[in-house]
Amino acid sequence: MNSTTDVQAMILDEGFRISRVGITGVQKPIRVKRNEREVDLTTTIDVFVDLPSTHRGSHMSRNAEIINEVVDDSVRKPVSSLEWLAEDIAERLLQKHEYATTADAWLRATYFMEKKNPSGHSTLEPYILLAKGRANRNGERMKMVGVEVVGMNACPCAMENIRYELKKDYPRHEAAIDEMPCPTHNQRNITTLLMEVPSGTTVEADDLIRIVEGGMSSPTYEILKRNDEAKIVYDAHKKPRFVEDIVRAILSSILEEYIGLPEDVKIVVKSESQESIHKHNALAERITTLGELRA
Amino acid sequence: MNSTTDVQAMILDEGFRISRVGITGVQKPIRVKRNEREVDLTTTIDVFVDLPSTHRGSHMSRNAEIINEVVDDSVRKPVSSLEWLAEDIAERLLQKHEYATTADAWLRATYFMEKKNPSGHSTLEPYILLAKGRANRNGERMKMVGVEVVGMNACPCAMENIRYELKKDYPRHEAAIDEMPCPTHNQRNITTLLMEVPSGTTVEADDLIRIVEGGMSSPTYEILKRNDEAKIVYDAHKKPRFVEDIVRAILSSILEEYIGLPEDVKIVVKSESQESIHKHNALAERITTLGELRA
Amino acid sequence: MNSTTDVQAMILDEGFRISRVGITGVQKPIRVKRNEREVDLTTTIDVFVDLPSTHRGSHMSRNAEIINEVVDDSVRKPVSSLEWLAEDIAERLLQKHEYATTADAWLRATYFMEKKNPSGHSTLEPYILLAKGRANRNGERMKMVGVEVVGMNACPCAMENIRYELKKDYPRHEAAIDEMPCPTHNQRNITTLLMEVPSGTTVEADDLIRIVEGGMSSPTYEILKRNDEAKIVYDAHKKPRFVEDIVRAILSSILEEYIGLPEDVKIVVKSESQESIHKHNALAERITTLGELRA
Amino acid sequence: MNSTTDVQAMILDEGFRISRVGITGVQKPIRVKRNEREVDLTTTIDVFVDLPSTHRGSHMSRNAEIINEVVDDSVRKPVSSLEWLAEDIAERLLQKHEYATTADAWLRATYFMEKKNPSGHSTLEPYILLAKGRANRNGERMKMVGVEVVGMNACPCAMENIRYELKKDYPRHEAAIDEMPCPTHNQRNITTLLMEVPSGTTVEADDLIRIVEGGMSSPTYEILKRNDEAKIVYDAHKKPRFVEDIVRAILSSILEEYIGLPEDVKIVVKSESQESIHKHNALAERITTLGELRA
Repeated sequence: MNSTTDVQAMILDEGFRISRVGITGVQKPIRVKRNEREVDLTTTIDVFVDLPSTHRGSHMSRNAEIINEVVDDSVRKPVSSLEWLAEDIAERLLQKHEYATTADAWLRATYFMEKKNPSGHSTLEPYILLAKGRANRNGERMKMVGVEVVGMNACPCAMENIRYELKKDYPRHEAAIDEMPCPTHNQRNITTLLMEVPSGTTVEADDLIRIVEGGMSSPTYEILKRNDEAKIVYDAHKKPRFVEDIVRAILSSILEEYIGLPEDVKIVVKSESQESIHKHNALAERITTLGELRA
Repeated sequence: MNSTTDVQAMILDEGFRISRVGITGVQKPIRVKRNEREVDLTTTIDVFVDLPSTHRGSHMSRNAEIINEVVDDSVRKPVSSLEWLAEDIAERLLQKHEYATTADAWLRATYFMEKKNPSGHSTLEPYILLAKGRANRNGERMKMVGVEVVGMNACPCAMENIRYELKKDYPRHEAAIDEMPCPTHNQRNITTLLMEVPSGTTVEADDLIRIVEGGMSSPTYEILKRNDEAKIVYDAHKKPRFVEDIVRAILSSILEEYIGLPEDVKIVVKSESQESIHKHNALAERITTLGELRA
Repeated sequence: MNSTTDVQAMILDEGFRISRVGITGVQKPIRVKRNEREVDLTTTIDVFVDLPSTHRGSHMSRNAEIINEVVDDSVRKPVSSLEWLAEDIAERLLQKHEYATTADAWLRATYFMEKKNPSGHSTLEPYILLAKGRANRNGERMKMVGVEVVGMNACPCAMENIRYELKKDYPRHEAAIDEMPCPTHNQRNITTLLMEVPSGTTVEADDLIRIVEGGMSSPTYEILKRNDEAKIVYDAHKKPRFVEDIVRAILSSILEEYIGLPEDVKIVVKSESQESIHKHNALAERITTLGELRA
Repeated sequence: MNSTTDVQAMILDEGFRISRVGITGVQKPIRVKRNEREVDLTTTIDVFVDLPSTHRGSHMSRNAEIINEVVDDSVRKPVSSLEWLAEDIAERLLQKHEYATTADAWLRATYFMEKKNPSGHSTLEPYILLAKGRANRNGERMKMVGVEVVGMNACPCAMENIRYELKKDYPRHEAAIDEMPCPTHNQRNITTLLMEVPSGTTVEADDLIRIVEGGMSSPTYEILKRNDEAKIVYDAHKKPRFVEDIVRAILSSILEEYIGLPEDVKIVVKSESQESIHKHNALAERITTLGELRA
């Protein structure tokens, strides 16, 4: 042996196929250019390929090299989106791992978006951007864009039952109680929306954030003066929502806003509330396609 | 060399003292007997000793052996409390690490306590038990018991400001609005109380849990039928609390309930709210002694 | 309205189906009886049902009530296994949520198993037990048992390349270098094995733990005296393993040990190494059935 | 009442002082200019002030406003360092919270540094930057800079004991075994160094990273071809290190490199190894001052 050994390339007689093998938790800065603005996203990356039964090991260092290449490229020429990059990585994985039939790249980054709070002051709010890309040896390509949004929901059920209790305690105020929003439990809600982006089309993460926040009882803000705080709490009580309601409101918005997209577009909506009245969480999820929703 | 080498015992000419060296994240089942009931607590343990400048390494395996001993002993004879065990471990650490001058043991376990929900149904609620023990070569001993409790707080400030907004929108209901609890934001709150237990005395973790829950706007329960849910939300709105209020209410209860304990008893109270209206948390903390509180 | 309101039962004209809705992170002590030994497992439970398009909300409190029932029952009559309990919970969910067509229960608990370290001393080692149960309205039932095991793997590739480097630096020791295990990077490895348990059969979690540890370079132990430590490090270097090797070794053992189980038994094996030479992890996974493996 | 209510400003007769009250987990992008290079750091921020016994609540929204101000300012004029920013935030907190006597800001961000791997290829490696700032009403100011570094350590003790075992198994190779590095367990190590920066001086985070990596058995890299991998594993085996050794090596480097800094400079060094042979971690820590180290 006059050079280093390629143990991974050893041929196996009786191996099993590996569904996916790769590296997880690689952190890199990715420069993205969106709406004329360049931002550096601290991105966590997982990449995988499959491995046939005949090969002992996947060449893990190639994964890190590909990630390095795209990071370098993004410094010179910022990428248009994380989901575009995820598909690009998946294609490169397939090229470098000649034995693989499928390749996946999953990206996740904190992303800041400038919002106006109720009194119109600017506030940079943090969101999680998600992106998935897949490439198959048969030429199929797939990419998804997603967002994870922290907001607020107020419970519609408790509000009605407190209304009932208030009437018992304050019978003289029955008319007032019937007309006004009543107290209820409300809490931090985390909702994720992930959507396939068909080739040749664009789905803006900023739109997904708007759709998700529209489905909640209220968005939340880092900066709230006293009247802002009153405003969003008041608004949330005028729009109480179960996690089921949030998921459905988002599905409705998607149906309306993405009329032009094809039937097979995959959609995942998940909403989890960190219940203020329980030590556990409440969760609702729909995994579907545009076609199913339109049926 | 005719046996294994004790690299740790190497003598250093120019070492530095190490403040603490040990092992973290050791998981063991500990059998505790409390009020005639035996329970197995899945406990996470960290132990440390200091190391003089002259010794290269601490004998880490002795730490694991001591933990093993006390776990075995607890199976045969359940311990009376985690804090008692923490002090016992610290003493054994000092015996086995003859070069150390101080030894620490920190324990943490999920603990279930049977509670009654508002309609009187039993529900096993989870809490975190904390215990710390310290032993010094000069004979000093110290132990602390603590609890980490998940509950609920409702914001007093937003309630008053929503009261003001409601009057603007419903001027005809001004009297009703003045008399009744109004909507406000409420959320999951996590409060920790840690308290020194002087030698010869006992502080019951169950009492600490009761004190902490009493300081919140409301305890929370896993099981709540519709009227229970209305009850605790209603109660929370009649007792709105900032994190500062929670910390102070707990300090007040401690002053009242532990009249007999000496001045130098250490107390830590920390309350953190997972704000429903923000993406960040609110936190208040007091680190003090009974003497300071009584002054 | 003369009683509390059932907001969840509101009928929707244009709702969407929800794939799953339920509660997550419920913590309860579950008493399990295994091999004549009763243990209390601190268990984290997630439960879900689907929700038809016509119903506004799922009755979340029924989920907590069912969990409460089975916990109470387990105190009086310990359950035989977590996976049995998961299926039982799924069945009860389907009974109580009359509108649901499918119900799921996922359980996770730390579990301690008595092992012998290399010198024969007893040591209680922590593992994670996993269980899944599913019930469908059409009468189908499914349950899975799983384990998450922390162990050690040593890299076969780096060992061969260091062998090559050693020969360059110590040409006079070439024979020794060829015959002996050489240094390589090794690290903490976390491997998960999840396996379907067909109705009428039993799969012991303890067997799964043994199979997983057998696939690694070495199991790990909390208690290791100097010669034990040398033994397991030495052993690991005589059995270097990629994450791909670990997954395949486990698949082989399953094929051998579960000859009697049917073709459609689902199997998931995932192995993740916290690489000592990288800041990221390496991961391999196979999702398959016994039938596929036997083909 | 003709405006919103300032519930926080309520005067208490019998309150307790609160040691610290503030907000935690605020995420913001901070633009830093270092060595002519501008980078955006996704930063997590905690801020606190104390609260006198006479005030019911701290004005939490002022905290978020101050953070917003400095983020806006950093976009226009990048800050020179996170620790400078931490002190600046602390000063502004003290100005806005007129009742407070002390203010703290803690910052944490992922930071990428370009390194050369053993074969000279560039690789962007992730580190955690830490910064703390404090301001007191009496005019005292304090700031600290820190780094959290992931690297590798190889155990010196197991290497010697395996050397002993190898001699028993391969007596004919005794000379070779004595001369060459032997196998040992090695693992991912996470080491934190936090150091006070006296007014008028600068401590570069890049220097701290270099010092910490120099104290480990080896730095780690995301990109390693086969010969690079062999090189760093080989190097690590020629420089085996306990966590105690790592802490002391870093203390030594600090003494050498910061000769000009005053005695009262605070230093914290903590090293934690995710032991490959155990399910728990090993930890060593020194909390000290330059003066103590020089004594």
